[in-house]
Amino acid sequence: MAPSALILIADGTEEMEFTITFDTLVRADVVTRSAFVPENEGPYADSPPFAKGSRGINILPDFYLDDKHFGPDKFDLLVIPGGAKGADTMSKNQIVKKLVRDYLNASKVVGMICAGSLAALTSDLPRQPLTSHPSVKAQLEGFDYSEDSVVISGNLITSRGPGTAFPFAFALVERLCGADKRAEVFKPMVFPAGTPF
Amino acid sequence: MAPSALILIADGTEEMEFTITFDTLVRADVVTRSAFVPENEGPYADSPPFAKGSRGINILPDFYLDDKHFGPDKFDLLVIPGGAKGADTMSKNQIVKKLVRDYLNASKVVGMICAGSLAALTSDLPRQPLTSHPSVKAQLEGFDYSEDSVVISGNLITSRGPGTAFPFAFALVERLCGADKRAEVFKPMVFPAGTPF
Repeated sequence: MAPSALILIADGTEEMEFTITFDTLVRADVVTRSAFVPENEGPYADSPPFAKGSRGINILPDFYLDDKHFGPDKFDLLVIPGGAKGADTMSKNQIVKKLVRDYLNASKVVGMICAGSLAALTSDLPRQPLTSHPSVKAQLEGFDYSEDSVVISGNLITSRGPGTAFPFAFALVERLCGADKRAEVFKPMVFPAGTPF
Repeated sequence: MAPSALILIADGTEEMEFTITFDTLVRADVVTRSAFVPENEGPYADSPPFAKGSRGINILPDFYLDDKHFGPDKFDLLVIPGGAKGADTMSKNQIVKKLVRDYLNASKVVGMICAGSLAALTSDLPRQPLTSHPSVKAQLEGFDYSEDSVVISGNLITSRGPGTAFPFAFALVERLCGADKRAEVFKPMVFPAGTPF
């Protein structure tokens, strides 16, 4: 069965980080879906049917997040993208915090990029190697902070920003689908000669 | 006055190329808008209010393209992203073909990436240096084809695929806003050390 991924999205999500990760996973034949996290928990009545990206691109999510349909029995990978406001919404959301712990406890993979790494803090993950956008580094001093573009700590894979979204996505593809699939997806994207990933 | 950009979008547009270009221009304070190009010209009644991206991300355009509101008197830059189906739709559209010629005749900038470069052919642009996704290279043999990641030919700036979308976007930012703004936008995106652009 093809591996599957759930990528969260909210108002203020960094649309490049969301899109690069989603698209690259789909290119690797990962069954990929998005779920919207509302700014205020509770009924979705106040939420529009789309997520307002951090730079004005409006994206329609596949689902609205709930506490019943998105557990580690449903997907192999949970991704939390950045964008300051979107990551703030996600990292404070009770369902998201439980999902992060549940996925890791079930030996599924969790990816966090940019300010999305704040969810490692709010989900009370144990001290371990991790990276994030430099702007939230100070909040993550309880972790073994790295400035590598992609940091793999068991099943927690973290990254830094839009500029590292491609290597982040390829690390997720390699984990779910293997190195051959990574190479297969990489080639037709036509990266410049000398690209360091 | 801040420079402005219009990015076209259609069903089948490569959502990474669209999003990376749009988001990077917005980070450079370029007033950036998107316009939807329908598969069948004529009334928009059959089009949903969103563009179905090539890998399943649905994006809400700001406008629907018409022949009255999107000329070179309104924007400084016109961008045609790739994705085979989306680029096919755009490059065959009569309004798009006229806009490409009108922008260049008015000394405004036109950017094409990936299969979007086919619009240079369908718009009857004169022979000049150009690049594209390798998959459509054969159709562009009437141009001086290059395999550089970004090719600048006067006011026509072309590029190759998702892997070159960042250097493409930065080339557009540099043209519209200067090298200092490019450097300002580049830094907080946290590209890996050794990134060749």
